[in-house]
Amino acid sequence: MKSSAKNHGHHISQQFNAELEDVKNSMLEMGGIIEKRLGDAVTSVVESDSGLAARIIDEDDVIDTMEVQIDEECNLIIARRQPAASDLRMVLGIIKAVRDLERIGDETSKIARMAIKLSEEGEFPGGFVEFKRLGEQVSKMVNMSLDCFARYDAEAAIEVAQYDATVDNEYGSAMRSMITYMMEDPRSITRVLNVLWALRALERVGDHAKNICEHVIYVVKGMDVRHKNLDRVAEKINTES
Amino acid sequence: MKSSAKNHGHHISQQFNAELEDVKNSMLEMGGIIEKRLGDAVTSVVESDSGLAARIIDEDDVIDTMEVQIDEECNLIIARRQPAASDLRMVLGIIKAVRDLERIGDETSKIARMAIKLSEEGEFPGGFVEFKRLGEQVSKMVNMSLDCFARYDAEAAIEVAQYDATVDNEYGSAMRSMITYMMEDPRSITRVLNVLWALRALERVGDHAKNICEHVIYVVKGMDVRHKNLDRVAEKINTES
Repeated sequence: MKSSAKNHGHHISQQFNAELEDVKNSMLEMGGIIEKRLGDAVTSVVESDSGLAARIIDEDDVIDTMEVQIDEECNLIIARRQPAASDLRMVLGIIKAVRDLERIGDETSKIARMAIKLSEEGEFPGGFVEFKRLGEQVSKMVNMSLDCFARYDAEAAIEVAQYDATVDNEYGSAMRSMITYMMEDPRSITRVLNVLWALRALERVGDHAKNICEHVIYVVKGMDVRHKNLDRVAEKINTES
Repeated sequence: MKSSAKNHGHHISQQFNAELEDVKNSMLEMGGIIEKRLGDAVTSVVESDSGLAARIIDEDDVIDTMEVQIDEECNLIIARRQPAASDLRMVLGIIKAVRDLERIGDETSKIARMAIKLSEEGEFPGGFVEFKRLGEQVSKMVNMSLDCFARYDAEAAIEVAQYDATVDNEYGSAMRSMITYMMEDPRSITRVLNVLWALRALERVGDHAKNICEHVIYVVKGMDVRHKNLDRVAEKINTES
């Protein structure tokens, strides 16, 4: 366990500590559900499983309810406990991470909706090789970003955030092959566009996972690294620790 | 002026009040700059002005710096002043609105990048009627959502949020005509896709403006209306007031 994790237990009362852990665990639980849904959404596209896709869309409310509840808990903690310094960063970090998780949930529902459209419109001629690969990469990013939050691991968070560039490259090459399909067979345009939207949704999921990593760095190190060069942030953190 | 605006001046010290107003004004100032940039980005597409587009992209840093500063100010206010109830909602509402503003800034830069691509690839045969109209609608939404925040006007915020449905319809019809263009002339696909991404960016700007309206309702009424039916929220607020 990192030393920074221990710091979070120090100068705060037992009761407050328990509340913070509770709300962090709720966030991680929400994250677990979202990870599962994302994996299912990718499967629903690849296997043309509109039943699975419909279930994902139906259960969207669960995520929304969790988001509102956790947000409310965080507000209560701030109002009642008046945290400062690293504790306040922790609560604000959770508020922000929850928002990114909810956005991942939105993108997941979009992917499920595309799965239904694709199964209605018949087989996509190009197959889903690129989509599946991007789906795996992005799911891994989400999983690892939550893991970094659970362990307050800023070093690992930077690595996961940096991985977003690989995802973006993969996305770019998938897009180019979609454009080629459309040009070769204009009748396929509507179907290819659905795959294209689903790819774009995955790419955005990667962005949100990156955001979660940035929140981890903020919580643990007190550094706001948004819009900063991650290589330099990594260097700085490594010199410090 | 609404009565809710007055409430925000009551039970808090003069100094705290001034700090809150300061940070709110910084947020509104950031909003003003973002509005201007959005209008310019739409113009850069419609008039194929790659010079204007390049300037928008160059000045992206300004927004990022403002976001980080305002966020930091809000954190300081929470840590130092330990606000409760409506004051805490105000600070949290600003934190969230700033995040949505920054996202609008991101979408604006995307639109500017598409303007550059479009001017490189030559005239888009379909013209920009739909794009221009959507751009106007969405800019108006951003402007009005900030206005609602400035005046703590929850009733108006609901109306602006409801207008997002109109924007979505407009977007849907623009998308359909883009697909028609691609099918009629497959050689235009790459160019049309650029317009399509720019349209999508506008649609997302509308979503963020809607989010800002939801933050206003949260700040003023203490209601979390995300994921709720807005007609019913409007009814509830009107019965209360």
